[in-house]
Amino acid sequence: MLSARNQFPGVVKSVKLGNVMAEVVVEVGTLEVVSLISRTSAEQLNLKVGDSVTAIIKSTEVMVAK
Amino acid sequence: MLSARNQFPGVVKSVKLGNVMAEVVVEVGTLEVVSLISRTSAEQLNLKVGDSVTAIIKSTEVMVAK
Amino acid sequence: MLSARNQFPGVVKSVKLGNVMAEVVVEVGTLEVVSLISRTSAEQLNLKVGDSVTAIIKSTEVMVAK
Amino acid sequence: MLSARNQFPGVVKSVKLGNVMAEVVVEVGTLEVVSLISRTSAEQLNLKVGDSVTAIIKSTEVMVAK
Amino acid sequence: MLSARNQFPGVVKSVKLGNVMAEVVVEVGTLEVVSLISRTSAEQLNLKVGDSVTAIIKSTEVMVAK
Amino acid sequence: MLSARNQFPGVVKSVKLGNVMAEVVVEVGTLEVVSLISRTSAEQLNLKVGDSVTAIIKSTEVMVAK
Repeated sequence: MLSARNQFPGVVKSVKLGNVMAEVVVEVGTLEVVSLISRTSAEQLNLKVGDSVTAIIKSTEVMVAK
Repeated sequence: MLSARNQFPGVVKSVKLGNVMAEVVVEVGTLEVVSLISRTSAEQLNLKVGDSVTAIIKSTEVMVAK
Repeated sequence: MLSARNQFPGVVKSVKLGNVMAEVVVEVGTLEVVSLISRTSAEQLNLKVGDSVTAIIKSTEVMVAK
Repeated sequence: MLSARNQFPGVVKSVKLGNVMAEVVVEVGTLEVVSLISRTSAEQLNLKVGDSVTAIIKSTEVMVAK
Repeated sequence: MLSARNQFPGVVKSVKLGNVMAEVVVEVGTLEVVSLISRTSAEQLNLKVGDSVTAIIKSTEVMVAK
Repeated sequence: MLSARNQFPGVVKSVKLGNVMAEVVVEVGTLEVVSLISRTSAEQLNLKVGDSVTAIIKSTEVMVAK
């Protein structure tokens, strides 16, 4: 169990690989969650369109606008 | 327009104030998004239960689990 | 109004686009603020040298050295 | 030499101690930079109003609004 | 499997609870890793001294000094 | 002295340069710490395999899994 309180199950919509980084878009219900991780991580997870994944965000990283 | 690509409209479900920090829970559809911001920010935004807000997350802060 | 308390108006000095990421340098008075965002964000904002922008930083991300 | 590219010399304007966290406001020229660090760090650095310090921010943490 | 590439098994050395935040110190071999999470997370994980845990850090959050 | 409480001395094991970003792997005892910084930072630090460096992480960025 991970301390990060934002854990949102979804499906990979796209994976874009750069040299060092990768951009992964995850559909979480009607939301699109964009993640920037290392290319190595994307490859180690073997992320592909359609994969069931969980987008995870530490709460200290979430801002609020009103 | 803000560069952060994760911007999720929702409603404040709870606000807990500490001395320095505040925990804000935002209902985004069926998801609960937890945010840890400064107490001063929570007060400046005058965050209250039921407020319409947007939870915002920079993409570099989003991890993926598979 | 955004909870992030560090919001510094400035002018774009440079934009460098990678495959996935972009580096944006913003002149804030006499300071240079460097930002690493997704290439997609830089393109969506259509960031160009000379643009008036605001550099924004969540307070939990700021360290202090003495 | 630290990889973080945003290093802004300034003067401590205020220190607020909570149980776990501390809020430090640093005047950097005409800007106010707000930092949230652990109370333990604030105590280890012995941060006091008027101290000469440097506010430091990793570039991946900087957003841009336009 | 989580995309965060820094995952370090260790043992909880101390837990300090504030109103909103908690500070957890994890011994990882001869290193001490300090984590600031929400009090709620610390309680949900029921973190106690001596627990076997893993400290996890997204690579975008790691700086290098030389 | 820097407020970031996680400062781990080690040796550079690899440096991979992208267009905008760089991935640096640091051996800290028996651990491998992965850092994603800007290519410019990696070049300014002139990071090379075998360099003695310190991996630095702000405590708000550390999660705990149990």
